[in-house]
Amino acid sequence: MSNSLQKTLVLLRHGQSTWNLQNRFTGWTDVGLSEQGHAEAIESGRRLATAGLRFDIAFTSVLKRAIKTLWLALEEMDQMWIPVRRSWRLNERHYGALQGEFKDEMAERVGKELVQRWRRCFDVRPPSLTEDDTRFPGRDPRYAKLRHEQLPLGESLKDTIERVLPYWHKTIVPAFGSANRVLIVAHGNTLRALVKHLDQVSDDEITNLNIPTGVPIIIPVNGAIQPIKSVREGIPAQLEKCGDIEP
Amino acid sequence: MSNSLQKTLVLLRHGQSTWNLQNRFTGWTDVGLSEQGHAEAIESGRRLATAGLRFDIAFTSVLKRAIKTLWLALEEMDQMWIPVRRSWRLNERHYGALQGEFKDEMAERVGKELVQRWRRCFDVRPPSLTEDDTRFPGRDPRYAKLRHEQLPLGESLKDTIERVLPYWHKTIVPAFGSANRVLIVAHGNTLRALVKHLDQVSDDEITNLNIPTGVPIIIPVNGAIQPIKSVREGIPAQLEKCGDIEP
Repeated sequence: MSNSLQKTLVLLRHGQSTWNLQNRFTGWTDVGLSEQGHAEAIESGRRLATAGLRFDIAFTSVLKRAIKTLWLALEEMDQMWIPVRRSWRLNERHYGALQGEFKDEMAERVGKELVQRWRRCFDVRPPSLTEDDTRFPGRDPRYAKLRHEQLPLGESLKDTIERVLPYWHKTIVPAFGSANRVLIVAHGNTLRALVKHLDQVSDDEITNLNIPTGVPIIIPVNGAIQPIKSVREGIPAQLEKCGDIEP
Repeated sequence: MSNSLQKTLVLLRHGQSTWNLQNRFTGWTDVGLSEQGHAEAIESGRRLATAGLRFDIAFTSVLKRAIKTLWLALEEMDQMWIPVRRSWRLNERHYGALQGEFKDEMAERVGKELVQRWRRCFDVRPPSLTEDDTRFPGRDPRYAKLRHEQLPLGESLKDTIERVLPYWHKTIVPAFGSANRVLIVAHGNTLRALVKHLDQVSDDEITNLNIPTGVPIIIPVNGAIQPIKSVREGIPAQLEKCGDIEP
């Protein structure tokens, strides 16, 4: 881990999930990759290997579509041995009582406009879960160590950013102390949170940023772990396939 | 993670590797699982799920046959989200200049007796690597943080035990402070090291203990992380398939 290497952050959104494909609100629901998502994950590893990137550490969420994407990419890169840290703070935005619902059905029921507000407004929360709902994260052992007030009932993009950034500052940035190349495999809104912070994007603009599934975003950073050039210019456009775009 | 749960340690040897199958000395060579090994890993996850075991943390080596076994087992158990720690200290015994050699060919060249000594004597080292050998671990980035004297040129079982036990005492035992169920996926000799320590097995006896590939060894432990009953009695015999037994 020579310090002469260009410090580089790579952001990778998980490959297409089974619920992306079905066009359902997913959030913290722990669904797996679709066949296409599986292929996208392998392809992302191939691209990173071709770019000659070798990682010192990787971060991901506690949701299997991100973890499996990371595993497939690491296997393709022959880098399965690097340390991996998982955190609920990198989870997708919690979609509250919408989780599991089909987006089209919901639009028919409540109107397209309201669905657009839930999906595209910076600080609008979805309808809340109640704590007796089977979808309440407090029932899942993976969240057993969270304080009660950390367990979401439904988050806006703003809420999501507020729980992602402490992890960025307290865990990921310090990792660059001994690491030159850091990989984060996470979700549409988690990565939006990071891009918003890195590129200082306004609240309104960030809701229109789409991060494609399975395409690594390679970000050279300076010693203060700030991007050397615009992050957004390095994000390839994705032809919107039905359901691929969660938010 | 209720403290009323029985504290349990599970040891799992990786599934059959491609070099187990070819009957070659493997050691720190980073070979993958064979098709059978892949199936064994999935089956081990199925057994653990059937036993109702849910883990709080897992430990493994930095070698892909162990990591992939862990991944396949975790996926089968739907426990991909648990924290995983990798360490070179859980690697297989380093087999020095024997690594890559076919066991039968070596027996023809130097005699069966000497090969048996290398494989079965507690404190006999294999022929050493030299540091200019491509197999020298100092050339591999995954060992970049090791001190020079930690980089093996070839280990006896005794040497292996001496680098495994500090990890047991300093990292795995303390993990039981907040974890009730700990999974270790490692290698024939690493697991021998742990069984020797847990069961207080003599130097001579331990060389005759065979740990089958892909079969979880479930060990209830007390508050001092000592086994409640003999570990060895819980190890199923394995019909020795050609090459499965490395040491």
